[in-house]
Amino acid sequence: MTDYLKEECGVFGVFGHPEASNLTYLGLYALQHRGQESAGITSFDGKCFHIHRQMGLVADIFKHHILEPLKGEIAIGHVRYSTAGSSNIKNCQPFLMEYALGGLSIAHNGNLINDVPTRKRLVDSGAIFQSNSDTEVIMHLIARSPLPTIEDRVIDALKEIKGAYSLVILAGSKLIAVRDPNGFRPLCLGRLGRAYLVASETCSFDIMEAEFIREIEPGEMLVIDNRGLKSYYPFDAEPKRQCIFEFIYFARPDSFIFGENVYNVRKRLGELLYEYSPCVADIVIPVPDSGIPSAIGFSQKSGIPLELGLIRNHYVGRTFIEPKQSIRHFGVKIKLNANPSILKNKRVVVIDDSIVRGTTSRKIIKMIRNAGAREIHFRISSPPIISPCYYGIDTPTHNELIANSHTIEEINRYVTSDSLAYLSIEALKKAVKNPDDFCYACFTGKYPLKFPKEEIEQLKLFRREEE
Amino acid sequence: MTDYLKEECGVFGVFGHPEASNLTYLGLYALQHRGQESAGITSFDGKCFHIHRQMGLVADIFKHHILEPLKGEIAIGHVRYSTAGSSNIKNCQPFLMEYALGGLSIAHNGNLINDVPTRKRLVDSGAIFQSNSDTEVIMHLIARSPLPTIEDRVIDALKEIKGAYSLVILAGSKLIAVRDPNGFRPLCLGRLGRAYLVASETCSFDIMEAEFIREIEPGEMLVIDNRGLKSYYPFDAEPKRQCIFEFIYFARPDSFIFGENVYNVRKRLGELLYEYSPCVADIVIPVPDSGIPSAIGFSQKSGIPLELGLIRNHYVGRTFIEPKQSIRHFGVKIKLNANPSILKNKRVVVIDDSIVRGTTSRKIIKMIRNAGAREIHFRISSPPIISPCYYGIDTPTHNELIANSHTIEEINRYVTSDSLAYLSIEALKKAVKNPDDFCYACFTGKYPLKFPKEEIEQLKLFRREEE
Amino acid sequence: MTDYLKEECGVFGVFGHPEASNLTYLGLYALQHRGQESAGITSFDGKCFHIHRQMGLVADIFKHHILEPLKGEIAIGHVRYSTAGSSNIKNCQPFLMEYALGGLSIAHNGNLINDVPTRKRLVDSGAIFQSNSDTEVIMHLIARSPLPTIEDRVIDALKEIKGAYSLVILAGSKLIAVRDPNGFRPLCLGRLGRAYLVASETCSFDIMEAEFIREIEPGEMLVIDNRGLKSYYPFDAEPKRQCIFEFIYFARPDSFIFGENVYNVRKRLGELLYEYSPCVADIVIPVPDSGIPSAIGFSQKSGIPLELGLIRNHYVGRTFIEPKQSIRHFGVKIKLNANPSILKNKRVVVIDDSIVRGTTSRKIIKMIRNAGAREIHFRISSPPIISPCYYGIDTPTHNELIANSHTIEEINRYVTSDSLAYLSIEALKKAVKNPDDFCYACFTGKYPLKFPKEEIEQLKLFRREEE
Amino acid sequence: MTDYLKEECGVFGVFGHPEASNLTYLGLYALQHRGQESAGITSFDGKCFHIHRQMGLVADIFKHHILEPLKGEIAIGHVRYSTAGSSNIKNCQPFLMEYALGGLSIAHNGNLINDVPTRKRLVDSGAIFQSNSDTEVIMHLIARSPLPTIEDRVIDALKEIKGAYSLVILAGSKLIAVRDPNGFRPLCLGRLGRAYLVASETCSFDIMEAEFIREIEPGEMLVIDNRGLKSYYPFDAEPKRQCIFEFIYFARPDSFIFGENVYNVRKRLGELLYEYSPCVADIVIPVPDSGIPSAIGFSQKSGIPLELGLIRNHYVGRTFIEPKQSIRHFGVKIKLNANPSILKNKRVVVIDDSIVRGTTSRKIIKMIRNAGAREIHFRISSPPIISPCYYGIDTPTHNELIANSHTIEEINRYVTSDSLAYLSIEALKKAVKNPDDFCYACFTGKYPLKFPKEEIEQLKLFRREEE
Repeated sequence: MTDYLKEECGVFGVFGHPEASNLTYLGLYALQHRGQESAGITSFDGKCFHIHRQMGLVADIFKHHILEPLKGEIAIGHVRYSTAGSSNIKNCQPFLMEYALGGLSIAHNGNLINDVPTRKRLVDSGAIFQSNSDTEVIMHLIARSPLPTIEDRVIDALKEIKGAYSLVILAGSKLIAVRDPNGFRPLCLGRLGRAYLVASETCSFDIMEAEFIREIEPGEMLVIDNRGLKSYYPFDAEPKRQCIFEFIYFARPDSFIFGENVYNVRKRLGELLYEYSPCVADIVIPVPDSGIPSAIGFSQKSGIPLELGLIRNHYVGRTFIEPKQSIRHFGVKIKLNANPSILKNKRVVVIDDSIVRGTTSRKIIKMIRNAGAREIHFRISSPPIISPCYYGIDTPTHNELIANSHTIEEINRYVTSDSLAYLSIEALKKAVKNPDDFCYACFTGKYPLKFPKEEIEQLKLFRREEE
Repeated sequence: MTDYLKEECGVFGVFGHPEASNLTYLGLYALQHRGQESAGITSFDGKCFHIHRQMGLVADIFKHHILEPLKGEIAIGHVRYSTAGSSNIKNCQPFLMEYALGGLSIAHNGNLINDVPTRKRLVDSGAIFQSNSDTEVIMHLIARSPLPTIEDRVIDALKEIKGAYSLVILAGSKLIAVRDPNGFRPLCLGRLGRAYLVASETCSFDIMEAEFIREIEPGEMLVIDNRGLKSYYPFDAEPKRQCIFEFIYFARPDSFIFGENVYNVRKRLGELLYEYSPCVADIVIPVPDSGIPSAIGFSQKSGIPLELGLIRNHYVGRTFIEPKQSIRHFGVKIKLNANPSILKNKRVVVIDDSIVRGTTSRKIIKMIRNAGAREIHFRISSPPIISPCYYGIDTPTHNELIANSHTIEEINRYVTSDSLAYLSIEALKKAVKNPDDFCYACFTGKYPLKFPKEEIEQLKLFRREEE
Repeated sequence: MTDYLKEECGVFGVFGHPEASNLTYLGLYALQHRGQESAGITSFDGKCFHIHRQMGLVADIFKHHILEPLKGEIAIGHVRYSTAGSSNIKNCQPFLMEYALGGLSIAHNGNLINDVPTRKRLVDSGAIFQSNSDTEVIMHLIARSPLPTIEDRVIDALKEIKGAYSLVILAGSKLIAVRDPNGFRPLCLGRLGRAYLVASETCSFDIMEAEFIREIEPGEMLVIDNRGLKSYYPFDAEPKRQCIFEFIYFARPDSFIFGENVYNVRKRLGELLYEYSPCVADIVIPVPDSGIPSAIGFSQKSGIPLELGLIRNHYVGRTFIEPKQSIRHFGVKIKLNANPSILKNKRVVVIDDSIVRGTTSRKIIKMIRNAGAREIHFRISSPPIISPCYYGIDTPTHNELIANSHTIEEINRYVTSDSLAYLSIEALKKAVKNPDDFCYACFTGKYPLKFPKEEIEQLKLFRREEE
Repeated sequence: MTDYLKEECGVFGVFGHPEASNLTYLGLYALQHRGQESAGITSFDGKCFHIHRQMGLVADIFKHHILEPLKGEIAIGHVRYSTAGSSNIKNCQPFLMEYALGGLSIAHNGNLINDVPTRKRLVDSGAIFQSNSDTEVIMHLIARSPLPTIEDRVIDALKEIKGAYSLVILAGSKLIAVRDPNGFRPLCLGRLGRAYLVASETCSFDIMEAEFIREIEPGEMLVIDNRGLKSYYPFDAEPKRQCIFEFIYFARPDSFIFGENVYNVRKRLGELLYEYSPCVADIVIPVPDSGIPSAIGFSQKSGIPLELGLIRNHYVGRTFIEPKQSIRHFGVKIKLNANPSILKNKRVVVIDDSIVRGTTSRKIIKMIRNAGAREIHFRISSPPIISPCYYGIDTPTHNELIANSHTIEEINRYVTSDSLAYLSIEALKKAVKNPDDFCYACFTGKYPLKFPKEEIEQLKLFRREEE
């Protein structure tokens, strides 16, 4: 149950379609799972930029009268959950700036790791920051580059930053898509008729029946203009460090990213989970919705029948407010309910994708127990999370991660399951085709990118609050 | 795919809890699937009634400042989708009236069938109607009864009406729950500490960890007051005619109604579907979410593995507006996406709970075909719908029901599946314990309650429009 | 300063114009000063009624998409402040009902005085009430009349009620306007091209450049249909008892009602105020806006120059919320500010239209004193209010009316003025052409209509609270 | 009638009060007439800045839950109408930035005239702009100054800019107020207990019963911190060029600015108008509300009685939408109505403060004529506007100003008055104490500050559109 692993961002871009903003709206709609806090679209009509950003869900923000003025054949969009920067309108993306070469808008998925020292350096030399977002650092670097073309300036800027970034940039009549050299976050290229599309995940292409061409490569900068596509590989070669957690939890199961279908990987995780940590049981039940593919894999491999023992209430929304006073602590009951008819007197395998703090898991296990389960074997389709992510996933700090300070047996006792098993990293690696191309830092604490010294020092000091 | 079988209403009541309105809010929240159009709560504080009704979702309407003034230890609530009466604030329930015995508030799930002639008779004798709702008829009948007690008046009133009704009535210091003699709609009794609860479905009790006591019986009027519970059976005995469609589609799978767990019945439907209409295939995929339990049953019975070949976008909401101009006809793609990685070159069994107009099914089948499926065998876990429901389900008219005018083979061709099979009524009856206790009118056209002549004549004439 | 004499209602009607709802919108807009709490419009398109009612200001409620569905060539509208019934959506007018003759919508300005016993009688014979409004009583009486035509039924109903009512009724293809036999509230007839208009005040006609024909007479029922206008005088003759307070405070100064222009009457009040209560002073200042015409009259008669020593903030709105904590008691400063440059060392005559509780007057006088005024002579352009109004003005109870229990000298001391004078009733009567045609009950306690005994008893008992 | 001379901005600041944000809210509320488009408040709590900006009216934006998080004892606020930059959330003030010395927030009333070349220079050297506002230029200049203290940096920055600026700056624990060397816009210093206040107009002090100390001088930079007040005069001496239009139309009549009470000046304008352009007439009527003080002056000087012949509808709001279709061209009738009872057969002097395009004046004169006026003598309490304002008032371009291309006699014919007279500049100067201290550019075309050459060239080219 990954409620506490907050989703991050999704980006989308269109080049060369008369309804670029409408397509961006649809693309963002399909990426809504990557960020439910705010959404924005910038378009360029050949002369002017048009932009609309707002807190809220894509379908609630973009009504006809909002989309209509976003004219032009090029557009980019962004959905966001707060990974860096606080939660308010100032940090909504895309950002839009005027700089020496004209106008430029940018949408960013990922987290920089040297943004604090870079920001400090920029500020010391006279730059002003109007948000908390690390994306504003990239904008300054582009604006301050002395080079004559936008392509050169983007390259110049990105050479100064480290971290995770899948960027979509609307630079006047050019659309630029860049993926960091390690390729932490996904970024895909598509086509709809004669228009080109860029999106975090391929499910954005499916909704508009567009064709998926290929993924943008780690370290690739793709420039789309009236002359067509042009690829640059301006960075020193780095090993691929794609986020394994996109497969485990983040990405939509129908998307194709990092060379594989998410659903298939997730199902293999369930199969491996049985292979490595089998158990005798009557039924397998997933924690919905993210646990379902792994539970299918576990069930098929084990032969233990799958049942929907936990039902999810899909009308939860962001707005649910627990009533005050004596009625409290509904917590997970607002989202999930256990079905006693299925669970009563059963030996149950419960499949979830991860355990973060452990509190939600504990509530789920207790709820299943109260529904009459005789035995509860808790199986997690990923290894224990021991370290926070600095590349774009909003995990809590070390202290809050239960697996950082507790053994599996301690966690088992805490969540009150009869047995608990995680997938080992060894097993996890068997679920993907090229296991060396991934980042496992949240499971190992071994970060592929080292933090600059200043960053580490300041990590907890800096946070300007804003309402 | 039952998009066109609009959900109807849910009712909830609390007697004897200091936070009656808060509990009602939670209870309605768990019943949200029964109606997403409007919601309302009435409370009684011993002296005054307090009420709030509004268009929208439960969690969006009932904020702290709205709930706080709804004081008192007795409360009732209602969620609604337009089955009778048009969609506006005037028809929001609960209704609240002043009448000869004081104040009375009422929440109604179901549809009357003699409301038009009764309404006409009332109007002719000087009554005024301020809404289109058939519930207002019941209010007038209670108000006009000459009998001295509210219990007698409710009985007096209900003896004049025919149709489906599960009522929760807040009559000053009494809470009254009534289920029509045929028991079309569910109604359950629960307890939380010393407080009594009434709800359409038991999932309302689960969310607040309340105890499910029993179902209100068809024809039972249960009166709860400070002296406790008292049951009346004032009506002539009628055969039970519980709505089979609650099992097939409406009720939440974790609820226990009509003597059984919904999930279990739904899963048996899938098992029977395989038994009566087997096929050779590589995978079974459900149309989510309502098709999942049947697909699990089908998969387990057949041994054909279950896969999530269709992914549902849960951020759809009521607010999605298709962009104008050339981008059109997204239709089902807004809600569902097919996963080619699973479907490619596969022989696929698709499980859905019903076919209404056929248009949505056709889009789903085409989407699966486009994702690469080699064969598509469409299996429906209920019989063909040939007749509209007059007892509380918002089915379209005869003309719009594809199975009313087309053979199964014609439907198969229309939806473009390779084979199509429905569950027979004979098989359907095997899925429930007491098959004679159910209404199958939508599948048979044999209505358990005859319409009064006037009703039939006026059925299409009367509809006052209101914004 | 009449902040506490809350405004009541305004009504409007159109017969025979293709944009009846749009005209009603404009008419209500011009009547906004008569009620800022809610507004509503009903239209009839020859077959169906359409209605929209909402809390808020006319210009905020009626956007294009709200007006567009209100089709038809006949429409009525209502603006409301809470004179009877509590402040919520249930009491918003117009009301719309289905009854024996079809549909009927009604908008009411005024207050009945025998509504409580009539309501009790109706309820005892089986009627149900869904609001607190006395207007619902009229609807029941119309619905219960056994007479065959709507005209007869309206007459039948109105013969049973007593009190103040200017009604506009939309009865299918007829528009009916009625003014009670005493003519408490104004009601005017106008024409725009071939369409007929009915409005509380003539300023509604001016905004659409329509022609003012005449006032509806007290006791007149005017029926407008396709055959033209037809007048009925069905009631026993009663003396005219037009509300003098419409002239003093309520009506807009540019309106023509009760046979005179409001501004002219109000100016004469100021002239008479000087004649009867002269004083030596340097400047005359009005309490804006309602005190301005009287101040002009006072200034012209006395020769003492008029100055705007109090400035009104017109952005106050309904929404101003005083910040919590130590910053409190802004009260009147939110609306008014005194200008020291004008007031310093001056002997000042302050003109206001009335004193209700005295608290606001006290704040104003203190504010003027703080701004440096040497002497403050407070002159009120109406007599002391000693009794509440039961005919449509929301005055507080006897206890709260300062003049009910205090002498003028005591009030003078309380409000801290150097001298205080009211206009006498004798003088007030000189300001209007036919002084015997008016109701002065708030100044005399002599009510032209006696209350039925039950009414008096129940007056404080009955009030159902509703959110 | 100055509907087309859009109001500009108002600024407010508090130092040293525990409810700094609440006071700022009240201060902005009293300044609402200076800008109704957006409002914002920044506070500083000793560690963090808090900010809220929103489109809309002050009283609608700042509810308790919005104000509560704006903690701290220092706060600044801004109300805005679009004088520079387009109308959207990005341009809402105050602005807030992080720069080399920490955080800084700024609120600006006025318009720079060399912002375009300065912006170009900044952009060319790597700066990025995220709004259209000239205020962002000031922020960059402060951030880029190499000087060590904020005081020096502000001075450094302001020496590079030309134009009109009354600034309130929240720089951590210091509040800085600056008025440009010419003193175009007002800026006042006040005290509430031990707290210091800064405001565009003194009416902000009155609402909270604070004391007005003095005006900030042209060219003065006032720094308020825990040690008290400190004044700097860092700029070369310039002649005072205070905006005469603040007196004529903008400022609230109860405010004291530029050494005088606004009401008194406005009344003198009316007196002078009669002296220079007398006429024989029966009544004087103002165009409300801005024309009232001048009309009082005219009336007192001439002995012609003042009457309110035009009534203003104060519920207009921003939201009024003219109904579509045949009902059109209400225009000024939405705001004003003429009272025939006063005007009929009268010789009328109409007093307005200015004529901009002439279209509104024409409608008003026609409305008065239709109400029966025999003669209409139109008197304007300011000279003809022949040139746009570049210092903070949103006048239209030369082409749209009727007096730029037409003689007074031509204007008289266009607006259909019988005679038309403006106040001469010579007479206007007699209304104020130090006539040489004012800017009359809109009446003379002689601008006290010359535009840099680039500015003039680019004036019409640059405008980035944003929604």
